[in-house]
Amino acid sequence: MTPFPAPTPRTFTGGMWTFGRIIDRYATDGYGPTVSTLRTIELASASGELTGLDLNYPFDEGVAVDDVKKSLEEHRLSAVNITPVIYDRGFRSGSFTAADPAARARALDLAHESVEVARQLGARYVKFWPGQDGYDYPFQVDYATLRRHAVEGIRDVARNFPEVTFAIEYKLKEPRNRLFWSTAAASLLAIEQMGVDNVGLVVDFGHSLFAKENPAEALTLAHSMGRLVDIELDDNYREWDDDLTAGALHLVETLEFMHVIREIGWEKPLKLDLFPYREDPGDAVRESVATLRALEAKATALPLDELRAAQAAHDAMAVQRIVRAALLG
Amino acid sequence: MTPFPAPTPRTFTGGMWTFGRIIDRYATDGYGPTVSTLRTIELASASGELTGLDLNYPFDEGVAVDDVKKSLEEHRLSAVNITPVIYDRGFRSGSFTAADPAARARALDLAHESVEVARQLGARYVKFWPGQDGYDYPFQVDYATLRRHAVEGIRDVARNFPEVTFAIEYKLKEPRNRLFWSTAAASLLAIEQMGVDNVGLVVDFGHSLFAKENPAEALTLAHSMGRLVDIELDDNYREWDDDLTAGALHLVETLEFMHVIREIGWEKPLKLDLFPYREDPGDAVRESVATLRALEAKATALPLDELRAAQAAHDAMAVQRIVRAALLG
Amino acid sequence: MTPFPAPTPRTFTGGMWTFGRIIDRYATDGYGPTVSTLRTIELASASGELTGLDLNYPFDEGVAVDDVKKSLEEHRLSAVNITPVIYDRGFRSGSFTAADPAARARALDLAHESVEVARQLGARYVKFWPGQDGYDYPFQVDYATLRRHAVEGIRDVARNFPEVTFAIEYKLKEPRNRLFWSTAAASLLAIEQMGVDNVGLVVDFGHSLFAKENPAEALTLAHSMGRLVDIELDDNYREWDDDLTAGALHLVETLEFMHVIREIGWEKPLKLDLFPYREDPGDAVRESVATLRALEAKATALPLDELRAAQAAHDAMAVQRIVRAALLG
Amino acid sequence: MTPFPAPTPRTFTGGMWTFGRIIDRYATDGYGPTVSTLRTIELASASGELTGLDLNYPFDEGVAVDDVKKSLEEHRLSAVNITPVIYDRGFRSGSFTAADPAARARALDLAHESVEVARQLGARYVKFWPGQDGYDYPFQVDYATLRRHAVEGIRDVARNFPEVTFAIEYKLKEPRNRLFWSTAAASLLAIEQMGVDNVGLVVDFGHSLFAKENPAEALTLAHSMGRLVDIELDDNYREWDDDLTAGALHLVETLEFMHVIREIGWEKPLKLDLFPYREDPGDAVRESVATLRALEAKATALPLDELRAAQAAHDAMAVQRIVRAALLG
Repeated sequence: MTPFPAPTPRTFTGGMWTFGRIIDRYATDGYGPTVSTLRTIELASASGELTGLDLNYPFDEGVAVDDVKKSLEEHRLSAVNITPVIYDRGFRSGSFTAADPAARARALDLAHESVEVARQLGARYVKFWPGQDGYDYPFQVDYATLRRHAVEGIRDVARNFPEVTFAIEYKLKEPRNRLFWSTAAASLLAIEQMGVDNVGLVVDFGHSLFAKENPAEALTLAHSMGRLVDIELDDNYREWDDDLTAGALHLVETLEFMHVIREIGWEKPLKLDLFPYREDPGDAVRESVATLRALEAKATALPLDELRAAQAAHDAMAVQRIVRAALLG
Repeated sequence: MTPFPAPTPRTFTGGMWTFGRIIDRYATDGYGPTVSTLRTIELASASGELTGLDLNYPFDEGVAVDDVKKSLEEHRLSAVNITPVIYDRGFRSGSFTAADPAARARALDLAHESVEVARQLGARYVKFWPGQDGYDYPFQVDYATLRRHAVEGIRDVARNFPEVTFAIEYKLKEPRNRLFWSTAAASLLAIEQMGVDNVGLVVDFGHSLFAKENPAEALTLAHSMGRLVDIELDDNYREWDDDLTAGALHLVETLEFMHVIREIGWEKPLKLDLFPYREDPGDAVRESVATLRALEAKATALPLDELRAAQAAHDAMAVQRIVRAALLG
Repeated sequence: MTPFPAPTPRTFTGGMWTFGRIIDRYATDGYGPTVSTLRTIELASASGELTGLDLNYPFDEGVAVDDVKKSLEEHRLSAVNITPVIYDRGFRSGSFTAADPAARARALDLAHESVEVARQLGARYVKFWPGQDGYDYPFQVDYATLRRHAVEGIRDVARNFPEVTFAIEYKLKEPRNRLFWSTAAASLLAIEQMGVDNVGLVVDFGHSLFAKENPAEALTLAHSMGRLVDIELDDNYREWDDDLTAGALHLVETLEFMHVIREIGWEKPLKLDLFPYREDPGDAVRESVATLRALEAKATALPLDELRAAQAAHDAMAVQRIVRAALLG
Repeated sequence: MTPFPAPTPRTFTGGMWTFGRIIDRYATDGYGPTVSTLRTIELASASGELTGLDLNYPFDEGVAVDDVKKSLEEHRLSAVNITPVIYDRGFRSGSFTAADPAARARALDLAHESVEVARQLGARYVKFWPGQDGYDYPFQVDYATLRRHAVEGIRDVARNFPEVTFAIEYKLKEPRNRLFWSTAAASLLAIEQMGVDNVGLVVDFGHSLFAKENPAEALTLAHSMGRLVDIELDDNYREWDDDLTAGALHLVETLEFMHVIREIGWEKPLKLDLFPYREDPGDAVRESVATLRALEAKATALPLDELRAAQAAHDAMAVQRIVRAALLG
């Protein structure tokens, strides 16, 4: 059986938010001092492990796209993607699905602006994380209308920019109690209904666990449909988007995820989606990268023929032996 | 705004298993004595509230299809659907997705046989509940292969009988730790990939809750895609398929479910999927039916224009007031 | 059988936070504009349904205790309790259990200060919600030390003020991934080990659901041990502290909670713990109060003798009939 | 800092049920053929890794205690404990807490009988797993009465045999939807209220995960109160008692559990609680033992001084580095 092709050395990217000031509903004064847009770039670079950034847009007031461009160049970081902030106060009741047409229009405007910023920064794609698109209470929305708005809003943007790649990052809940873009399958189904070629999925390991999926299976599905745009890593206790360091809890499932990443021939960088509330973000990045490198090395060393034979037989104990040998020596 | 059409009086159907001997991994001697196939029909009829049954096939040894037919007629019960038992010992490692081709072949055979039985009994559809199709451990299966088998197996059956309706009942887990047909969206996506017209979905309220869906939203989705074949009701603590009586815990979400049932113009009977481990099954049926009738009456009395206006505005507090007025008077 | 005593008319209190600016990790610009300490009091009063407030301390800079006192008097609100803010940035790595002795000392100081503020405002008790006391990762803490600090810290405060009542509000997680004061039983066990008479529990309906407890059972337990200090109400999807309006989702369990509230003879006000991210807080309060009043009326009308007989027999179907009759008429 | 004492070589025990016929509510014909009491002993021995067994009592009809004794001796297996079957049909509505006094009396009788059997077989303790003691629906029971029966029933047994050790194995749910002996803390609190010295706890890793505890913390707590009687291992997806092989999913938390096992000086065997529905039980045992031995070796190699320093500082990233070095090299 043919082994997977030798990958180019794995690189990693990160989210700008990992280096910014984290805040929550209790520590409303933040888990640390304010961090400026340009400072997050410096900190990301200083972590020593990242080659690019997922950039929330708009930037700080007074910071021009060119300022960001220069800072990224200076720190040898690429712009992986632009993530328009369609989940802050202005969109508290929804972005593409807001009841208020003005909010929907603002979402479209910000999306278009983000496409422009992505072009200027050479970003590979524009990411939508519609964290306010959903509802909180039973009966609150008409589901058909919600669906129509969700699908049509992003379709409009995608059709306006057919040469640009867009991706949706799904999550089960938070901040809305129920999000429209909830699971891999729900999102892929809606994307199919959208009927455009340039919208795909970001599969986030932690969001997938939280959505009660097996992340490796979700990744396989998104890839098989030609809709996989990016991959994010982190960890959690399966019940909330805790955004812990990669591999902190679920080593076996992270190993399997790395195995599938190799299997599908993914050579692009892997992105980290971390919220180090109380930790140094550079430490959290380095710890995650070290864990993922170690796991990828172990994934690379898996006896593929043996593994495939065990999988062909659905032989749980045989795969356990293989995984144990790989992880625990 | 046009009100929903006045429904024909609502009727209810049930699962044969509700009246049979329930067993689990601890009470291996069962929660009661053995109940024969024909006796479950008598008990279902004696509940006084059911017009039809979901029938597991094969029946008890020695019971002919004609025996069942006569018993159903005698008790004025229809055969709603046939559910081939593709989840007992013979299929413990999978039915349509089993690693063993012989098991897959047996699943097909049993499916074909079930079509024949459904015809003889005049059942509306054949239901697949592939409760052993999935896996338990990471790495245990190749996901692409699992998917291929799951989709192709049922496609084969559906193509062989283009005039027969088939339905898949999804569930997140149990007995496998991870089931392939896990959520409404995952199942609809796979059904779309199947590319046949005669396979749809059974939306079970409890399975939907357990899959972290909002059942009313799942129902709307399945209906909008023209894939809704049947509806089942029950309740649980959102984390397992407890199969409690309908409305036992989630009155608001059950009311919303009944509202959507009316909204989509569903006039067929509603099926109960109950496991009354320690209760009289007739009591469990009657209690569920009484609750659902009361909720449907309240759903019927909802002020539709007001509700739609509140929903158009995503006004959570307005819908809460409406729901409270409906439920608590 | 003796009926419960006729209660004095039920009154309600609320948390100051319900009326303040809510923020989260995504809408870092808040779900609305800043609201001052004194304005939250005005808004609470304007809701028209509250007789007292749970007050976070410290107040806004420049606001004296006397200012708050005057404002409360002016608006005819009592100070139910003082809740020292031992969960913001200064305590991001713990309050009573912080690794840093200086943080532990600051927690004690703030607790002592809060006792003084409680005295000045005539508050009934001081509440600790040690939301940062816990950990996030396996191996992060030595559990025996964590426990010692958690128990000794609050014991120290309690012994310093033997005539003051203190209460602990437990929650499973958030903002820490694992909180020390996690469940009713875990907290009661630690309070017993504390060995003081003046520390008890706040049972929050939503925290209890989230902790996988049945709230009515948790309430019964805290009361039976003489440790029940206050009761809070809200609702959620059983998996996170969503702080939805009371009765929004779990009417049956809220009815049972109200029944136990009557059973234990609780005549003090009931407190609402709401986070109306996107709703008007006055609406959320009024909606919750209306629901709770309606449910208490239905709890009052429960046929006690019949209910007790059904409970004595553990007769699930009989209690379902009683509950259905009460709720759905 | 003093290292932990060198442990005697770790041994393992198992549950008789792992080798018996497993059944569930769907595969009511079992996941395999019937296995006799004596055959489970042979199979346990044949696994090659067990030194003792947790024995469900009563045995198969016609099998005398002496038969079991001889078989155990012949296969060089000890009787670790007797687990009276207080959860089959005869106790479907409860054992010590049943509404029916006759059922409660039968539970006591079976408990007494089990003490006698334990004596004859030289078992270290009698284990109660009161899987039917609880309830399914809100309002179904009076919680104070349930608690009284739960505590008094086991207290009676314990007082009758003050020289015998008893242990309770807690679980959140299954088969009842809500079990009285639900979490470590809830059980320890009730045991303290019981007021006897000879009743303690079995901490099962999987039950602890399922109860939303951190197993290492639960183990520390039970030990610190002098109530730890036995330790069981397995794994699950944190939401149900899946009884997968030890370390199948949660290597980090299992490593921490093994670390605490060493820290508290536990030298007794570790018991496996597995349900290998579709796997060879011998394989499941061997796989679990191999994983646990590997993890214990890694736990033994942890740099204790460094770890304790990191824990004293609650330094999540430092402990992550230590754990990563230990597990991934």
